[in-house]
Amino acid sequence: MTIPSHHTLLMTGAAGGLGQAMRARLKANCEVLRLSDVSPMAPAQAGEEVVQADLADADAVKALVAGCQAIVHFGGVSTEQPWGAILQANIVGLYNLYEAARLHGVKRIVFASSNHVMGFYRQSEVVDALSPPRPDGLYGVSKAFGEDLSRMYFERHGIETACVRIGSCLPEPKDRRMLASWISHDDMHRLITACLTTQVLGHSIIYGTSDNSVSWYDNRLAHHIGYRPKDSSDVFREAVFARTPEPDLKDPAVQFQGGAFVKIGPL
Amino acid sequence: MTIPSHHTLLMTGAAGGLGQAMRARLKANCEVLRLSDVSPMAPAQAGEEVVQADLADADAVKALVAGCQAIVHFGGVSTEQPWGAILQANIVGLYNLYEAARLHGVKRIVFASSNHVMGFYRQSEVVDALSPPRPDGLYGVSKAFGEDLSRMYFERHGIETACVRIGSCLPEPKDRRMLASWISHDDMHRLITACLTTQVLGHSIIYGTSDNSVSWYDNRLAHHIGYRPKDSSDVFREAVFARTPEPDLKDPAVQFQGGAFVKIGPL
Amino acid sequence: MTIPSHHTLLMTGAAGGLGQAMRARLKANCEVLRLSDVSPMAPAQAGEEVVQADLADADAVKALVAGCQAIVHFGGVSTEQPWGAILQANIVGLYNLYEAARLHGVKRIVFASSNHVMGFYRQSEVVDALSPPRPDGLYGVSKAFGEDLSRMYFERHGIETACVRIGSCLPEPKDRRMLASWISHDDMHRLITACLTTQVLGHSIIYGTSDNSVSWYDNRLAHHIGYRPKDSSDVFREAVFARTPEPDLKDPAVQFQGGAFVKIGPL
Amino acid sequence: MTIPSHHTLLMTGAAGGLGQAMRARLKANCEVLRLSDVSPMAPAQAGEEVVQADLADADAVKALVAGCQAIVHFGGVSTEQPWGAILQANIVGLYNLYEAARLHGVKRIVFASSNHVMGFYRQSEVVDALSPPRPDGLYGVSKAFGEDLSRMYFERHGIETACVRIGSCLPEPKDRRMLASWISHDDMHRLITACLTTQVLGHSIIYGTSDNSVSWYDNRLAHHIGYRPKDSSDVFREAVFARTPEPDLKDPAVQFQGGAFVKIGPL
Amino acid sequence: MTIPSHHTLLMTGAAGGLGQAMRARLKANCEVLRLSDVSPMAPAQAGEEVVQADLADADAVKALVAGCQAIVHFGGVSTEQPWGAILQANIVGLYNLYEAARLHGVKRIVFASSNHVMGFYRQSEVVDALSPPRPDGLYGVSKAFGEDLSRMYFERHGIETACVRIGSCLPEPKDRRMLASWISHDDMHRLITACLTTQVLGHSIIYGTSDNSVSWYDNRLAHHIGYRPKDSSDVFREAVFARTPEPDLKDPAVQFQGGAFVKIGPL
Amino acid sequence: MTIPSHHTLLMTGAAGGLGQAMRARLKANCEVLRLSDVSPMAPAQAGEEVVQADLADADAVKALVAGCQAIVHFGGVSTEQPWGAILQANIVGLYNLYEAARLHGVKRIVFASSNHVMGFYRQSEVVDALSPPRPDGLYGVSKAFGEDLSRMYFERHGIETACVRIGSCLPEPKDRRMLASWISHDDMHRLITACLTTQVLGHSIIYGTSDNSVSWYDNRLAHHIGYRPKDSSDVFREAVFARTPEPDLKDPAVQFQGGAFVKIGPL
Repeated sequence: MTIPSHHTLLMTGAAGGLGQAMRARLKANCEVLRLSDVSPMAPAQAGEEVVQADLADADAVKALVAGCQAIVHFGGVSTEQPWGAILQANIVGLYNLYEAARLHGVKRIVFASSNHVMGFYRQSEVVDALSPPRPDGLYGVSKAFGEDLSRMYFERHGIETACVRIGSCLPEPKDRRMLASWISHDDMHRLITACLTTQVLGHSIIYGTSDNSVSWYDNRLAHHIGYRPKDSSDVFREAVFARTPEPDLKDPAVQFQGGAFVKIGPL
Repeated sequence: MTIPSHHTLLMTGAAGGLGQAMRARLKANCEVLRLSDVSPMAPAQAGEEVVQADLADADAVKALVAGCQAIVHFGGVSTEQPWGAILQANIVGLYNLYEAARLHGVKRIVFASSNHVMGFYRQSEVVDALSPPRPDGLYGVSKAFGEDLSRMYFERHGIETACVRIGSCLPEPKDRRMLASWISHDDMHRLITACLTTQVLGHSIIYGTSDNSVSWYDNRLAHHIGYRPKDSSDVFREAVFARTPEPDLKDPAVQFQGGAFVKIGPL
Repeated sequence: MTIPSHHTLLMTGAAGGLGQAMRARLKANCEVLRLSDVSPMAPAQAGEEVVQADLADADAVKALVAGCQAIVHFGGVSTEQPWGAILQANIVGLYNLYEAARLHGVKRIVFASSNHVMGFYRQSEVVDALSPPRPDGLYGVSKAFGEDLSRMYFERHGIETACVRIGSCLPEPKDRRMLASWISHDDMHRLITACLTTQVLGHSIIYGTSDNSVSWYDNRLAHHIGYRPKDSSDVFREAVFARTPEPDLKDPAVQFQGGAFVKIGPL
Repeated sequence: MTIPSHHTLLMTGAAGGLGQAMRARLKANCEVLRLSDVSPMAPAQAGEEVVQADLADADAVKALVAGCQAIVHFGGVSTEQPWGAILQANIVGLYNLYEAARLHGVKRIVFASSNHVMGFYRQSEVVDALSPPRPDGLYGVSKAFGEDLSRMYFERHGIETACVRIGSCLPEPKDRRMLASWISHDDMHRLITACLTTQVLGHSIIYGTSDNSVSWYDNRLAHHIGYRPKDSSDVFREAVFARTPEPDLKDPAVQFQGGAFVKIGPL
Repeated sequence: MTIPSHHTLLMTGAAGGLGQAMRARLKANCEVLRLSDVSPMAPAQAGEEVVQADLADADAVKALVAGCQAIVHFGGVSTEQPWGAILQANIVGLYNLYEAARLHGVKRIVFASSNHVMGFYRQSEVVDALSPPRPDGLYGVSKAFGEDLSRMYFERHGIETACVRIGSCLPEPKDRRMLASWISHDDMHRLITACLTTQVLGHSIIYGTSDNSVSWYDNRLAHHIGYRPKDSSDVFREAVFARTPEPDLKDPAVQFQGGAFVKIGPL
Repeated sequence: MTIPSHHTLLMTGAAGGLGQAMRARLKANCEVLRLSDVSPMAPAQAGEEVVQADLADADAVKALVAGCQAIVHFGGVSTEQPWGAILQANIVGLYNLYEAARLHGVKRIVFASSNHVMGFYRQSEVVDALSPPRPDGLYGVSKAFGEDLSRMYFERHGIETACVRIGSCLPEPKDRRMLASWISHDDMHRLITACLTTQVLGHSIIYGTSDNSVSWYDNRLAHHIGYRPKDSSDVFREAVFARTPEPDLKDPAVQFQGGAFVKIGPL
């Protein structure tokens, strides 16, 4: 059972795939779930508020954050895109969000960082919270920016953030790489709940994957958050192997943790 | 099932809460369980010996230790108290105990150290056996002293000690902090049994908690002891949240692992 | 269920105890299991090829490797023996094997390294993939040689190797030390399968034991391999204690992880 | 004597204090020194080219970089300023610079990062290249962004960058904190020269200070750059003590490495 | 030239060898040098105060500390002695000193810890400030106690302490071991001065030796203190070799850093 | 001045370039310098013994070692060569040498290991004694074998070895890579002398280079040896740059520490 922790919880990025999957689940964590996206969302239901807003619009973001006690920030760009889009959504937008949080006294934020902050580590390496960033593109760089910005707001203003380096949050893993990076929707919700309810969150980095046998992540420095995955990509392993081709180990998309992100994009 | 490991096992601190809880359980670990405390204890039952003794009395401690093959040392002060009490029970008393062990050839000791050796780490930090001590008061300092003293007896005389940094050994966790620090009585017994039966104990530091989701401890350097907790504070989590107030993150008792110990006491 | 990963898989050392135990199991991993040993083996069954060959014979090894896509290398000497035997089987033989692999384009090898690479660590220490080698005899040195040689073939030629530091792969643990070092035959097969199927193996070091409570090994840097033991020596613990004498902690065979290997042998 | 390493070297930020101090010195490193700033600069002398340009103007930056083989990037904002200024100069500007470098095949960049990337470490801590960033304001965050962006260009495109976390590059240290952070102009030039001439620079982090007795920096992971400071703040120590007041250890500007930056600025 | 840093500086242990050597030198660090010992001292000269006091006498220590701004604590037992002597001087005495410091607002203490905190490391090992203590006797344990106690006073009350693990502070090295552990009187004074004048001392551990070629110590984590030795045991090396016998590597006094301390004493 | 440390010192490899350079210098370290090589050497002079011997001949090596107290082992192959040559000289030969040392009670050996044990680290990385080996060819693998073999003889028989990972010991650096790897003959002699005279050598790894500004090596874990280089490649820097071409950063011989060794040889 989920322990509710905040009266009003803001979830950004509510129109995206991840946002939609979390929308129903996060109702259990609060009394009012405020939902936001730059795109249209399904109408508000009981216990919900729906606010369409552009993260790059500082005033809109300030209004959005007012009255919330905590934020789950899925908003912004979540794929490799041209610089302009990433700049506005993930850099300017993130600054706007933290400024709004500071002004309105929000003290805890779950920030959707990404495995692409570490995308240039090899798939034969295991990283932890102290491994230096090796972002695999502009998207990964923007998420590293978010981790650094939130660290500064933690040091200066005591705003706690969990930087969740999300792997692949999908109904099921699509390819062999995702056998390592996959996180189920339910585990994603468990992880958010852990971040929202642990007594002291601090400024923490945690890898967001399910309990997959093959993994590139060591979360031992995030035990204080209390995340315990209950799902695993292992149940999909045979099927994924059956429907996907042999990997070519000379392909950077196979060599590196970031997968295809290390070679796609406008760069 | 518990594997008995020693003929005569001495348990000090038998009159305390932890001592009483372990008294029945430790009978399975030995043929004779010698029990000691500075306070009166329940009368000896079959397979028990009861010896009232003050740890600060060197001669009494020598007599107490004679004929034992191993010691579980719960005796001494277990809360923050004035210096005089801690000095006698935890510093002079510990010296007396190790000198007695040396004289009588006792080669293995389970020493009740404490999480308060590390009390000034934050609740958003995870510590391991190599993290330098940050005791939260005189009590914590006295336990750090015990860890250093026992190290010296290990190096010089080969007396093996497990320094068990016990969290909160109670029937159930009382507050939100104890969701991280709690260890059940049964897990405490499992841990002692592991220390008594592992082939080589060396001089080891191990954190004594149950399998709690939220944890500040990394025991990977103590795998040689073989402790596997079977209980968890998680089953109490909802109830604890329901009956305890929201934590104030500006309160040092919330910020630090030592909890209220970081601010109470004679200092 | 085991996912098959290669058409023709070579397993060396097929006449030995470990080889025989894996012979049946590894059929599930491939279409053709080629078996080799310097000693005679049971005749080939369906899906098997049996080739008697001496690893010290470079030409024989080249012929042996031709047409394989992966190798499980159990061949060579697996106990402390005179230098000449170890030199030929484990040093010259290993060079021959990797040269053959290079010539024939084999890209993945599971190399049976040994806990004896680390035999001079104490039984109260926990080692990981970064701990420097402390081999306990000529056998251990020859396995460290294999780890270094395979690293070089990885860097130069991209041949991936899992250096599996096998503990004690037997039907059950024979003594108290093996409670820590034991790996069941089924777990050994799970480990090999993981090495053969993980997308990127790299050049990796992994400790090969079952899920034993008492352990000297930390495999956190090998999560990318995806090995999950399902067996444990714990079920044998009581029986082993009952039939074995108290350990003498002054005996190097008790003090060190390598057990009796630290003191036997021609040295 | 300085070894010249590139035909045309671009130095941005030429109108600033640091830029002016390096302008004369860097002539020895190249045949043509191209100088740039958003502000007016002194007219070009022999071997110089002067190009006024705004880093936020992508096209201007592309033109600026054309024909250069290496860049010393001092341009952008070098103090805590409002978000808009930092965003344009240090974030958009840096992206423009690296894109221009990629397009024109520039392979080595000396990037003026800052001690303010690490400003929230205490003055009793020593940091190295692996310590995670703790920026002390928006300026520090923008420099951390530059380190991450340049890492990505290194991984993807092989552009080598030295991220020089410059302390206080001034004619002499102004206060007690600068006794630790000070770097002389000549040492700054030595450091740039080392970065430009070392055979392989990779993507490296190095702290830019002189050989000061009191230091918060450990450069052991940057030995490959070959920087050897010859100056020291020690010669100014007595005078600085004489003219500055006793530090108040309760002042964050005294506690933290970032000094006054940890509390000034628009935040 | 020494920069004076405090009006009234207390130096304990003034009657001992080290105390006498520092007495003249420390006058330059303050206006009033208060000197104390349990034994009689030479009469006070200009700028000195002489106070005979027993550290085990809490009231006497309170009086002693009143009016001081900083303390250089050389007092107490400095050799392996019976428990009672060490208990009173180094454990009770240290508690009394820190309590007095707390009551009188003293904020900086230079604590004479000892290399014997680390005495059971081998002479072929190099230790730093993070290496766990391995005290070589009761004396070493008492110094480890002092390090832990002062850490607690730092966390609770902001009293800064430099735990100086002094090697062998003598006019010249007496034997081959001291070629590694030796610190000249002048370097000892430089080290104290650095501790007293660095802007932020924190709670720090620093090894106190001269610039000896052979060394077991890595002070890279104490760069913030700014200690630069100018002397070296190297000038005595030939003479020491000439007058001392070949070391017996089977002797624990040769094997371990603590030298003869690892085997002498009442234990 | 060199302190003599042993009566009879054996130096192998006396006919090679390094051996010839050390021959004159090492006379100061002993009364009798025994010289050996598989090739002819200059005739013995006063205080010298010259013994031609093949390291692969166990009996010859036993005779060679008899009567020595220490060995400086430069013998064997020192370049990338076919497997057979390396096997005999560096693997069989090294085993013969250590067996002979064990039989004759030799307790200290200076073993010429090589930077090629680490040749596959990049020239932008800094390695220390704990970095895992990444040998760049068969030669490097054979030197890693020697490090492991000598470790085992240290653990089992107390034979101390300094594994000196020699860079480029030549009269002067020949190319840009050697600016990092160069060690002068005099520094080489200083390093050997340090190994022979330090009180406890243990089994140690030390990088053998002069005090070059550009370096890939961190010797902080070898401070107990007491090596202080006095020469530097810096004086040759300008000349080397003048006479060598610009490095091509796409060439593995430029990227990796091992230089051309990473791509030459029979592999």
